[in-house]
Amino acid sequence: MNAGQKKIEVCLTPSVFSEFRNDDAIVVVVDILRATSAIITAFMHGVRKIIPVATLEEAKAYKDKGYLVAAERDGIVRDFADFGNSPYNFQQQKIRNREIVYSTTNGTHCIMMARNSYRVLIGGYLNLTALSDFIKAEQRDLLILCAGWKNKFNLEDTLFAGALAEKVLQDQNYGTICDSALASIDLWTIARADMMHYIEKAAQRHRLKKNGLDDVIEYCHTPDLTALIPVLKENYLISSMDL
Amino acid sequence: MNAGQKKIEVCLTPSVFSEFRNDDAIVVVVDILRATSAIITAFMHGVRKIIPVATLEEAKAYKDKGYLVAAERDGIVRDFADFGNSPYNFQQQKIRNREIVYSTTNGTHCIMMARNSYRVLIGGYLNLTALSDFIKAEQRDLLILCAGWKNKFNLEDTLFAGALAEKVLQDQNYGTICDSALASIDLWTIARADMMHYIEKAAQRHRLKKNGLDDVIEYCHTPDLTALIPVLKENYLISSMDL
Repeated sequence: MNAGQKKIEVCLTPSVFSEFRNDDAIVVVVDILRATSAIITAFMHGVRKIIPVATLEEAKAYKDKGYLVAAERDGIVRDFADFGNSPYNFQQQKIRNREIVYSTTNGTHCIMMARNSYRVLIGGYLNLTALSDFIKAEQRDLLILCAGWKNKFNLEDTLFAGALAEKVLQDQNYGTICDSALASIDLWTIARADMMHYIEKAAQRHRLKKNGLDDVIEYCHTPDLTALIPVLKENYLISSMDL
Repeated sequence: MNAGQKKIEVCLTPSVFSEFRNDDAIVVVVDILRATSAIITAFMHGVRKIIPVATLEEAKAYKDKGYLVAAERDGIVRDFADFGNSPYNFQQQKIRNREIVYSTTNGTHCIMMARNSYRVLIGGYLNLTALSDFIKAEQRDLLILCAGWKNKFNLEDTLFAGALAEKVLQDQNYGTICDSALASIDLWTIARADMMHYIEKAAQRHRLKKNGLDDVIEYCHTPDLTALIPVLKENYLISSMDL
């Protein structure tokens, strides 16, 4: 890194976030399969606001107040909910201009742990280039926070971290000496030529397959379907266009 | 993975060890630059027992009891100590048949957190093939615990985890669906052809260079200088030959 460059770091699991915490940075939260891909998809289909909640109890309390609620556990939609957590659930007319509550243990935890940062963005392949452009326009340190799986490293979030880090590093004002950023970029370089083949070996894919939920994997790895970037404001997400 | 296979997992930093804990497994502790490489080197030069301690206070208390003590912080040998923590310090006649106290915050922490496992081994390139053979002879699950750097991921320990995992996986009785094991193997596959060039970018190398301690890096990446494997017994390490 050169003096004056903004630094890029990758936090591979939320359990080490405290080691990376940087309140001056932009934090991008990544949970490719499926929370952040689903949240981006909802904004693509006109949702006005998303309230991420960690527990089913919170989700149910919002439902009782009249909100649309997405809530599932282990791939099964909860009976009080309007739909499950799949990105496909948000590709429908009825969400337009609505406020949606999205129940996700890990994703919500990541979003809220980063809330003291300069800005918290929701990232995925679906908004990759727009996200990179938005970050570069701000010229601040970048911390990519991978949701992982139950506090463990996962491949699909790490690969995306590599893709985003590589894109932002094309701007000479950014640099990195973070080992996890360098590793992410190298893994992305291996995987990018045939992502679906590479991701085949990721453990989360096996879990989704077992639950019949693997139909979203290719969709969640499709680059640049939108220029919309969900941004945290207080405890809810809005589109960057509404900032 | 096939049914009946022993599993290989890689824990990329000690801070997520609780997610991987498996008391039936063999745990290999890895801190390539420099703790585990130094410990292996000491056994290569005839040391009988190594007592890893976490704090300088403990190290000093042992010194007062007549032990040889290796203790440094930030590359500077502490005035009460007999030598610093570099592997090179242990290549001398005076350590033969002695008990040595080795002060290392992170390494000791990793060794002791794994002590309820079936067996705790100390690994490095220096004993790579012997280590792999020893593990395969036991036919148990394998957990590779990377010391990392201040609870963060680091490249040099991860690369070694990939090297070891790949070697053990040559035995058809082992398999893995652990994302961090798969990533480690892929990174090792990139790096192995020109390790010194690859490791050039690792942050720990920069730290050692800054402190003039980078002369050990090539040595610590030299494969198979010994068949000795340090093994934890109670709270100290002995050679596997003395088990």
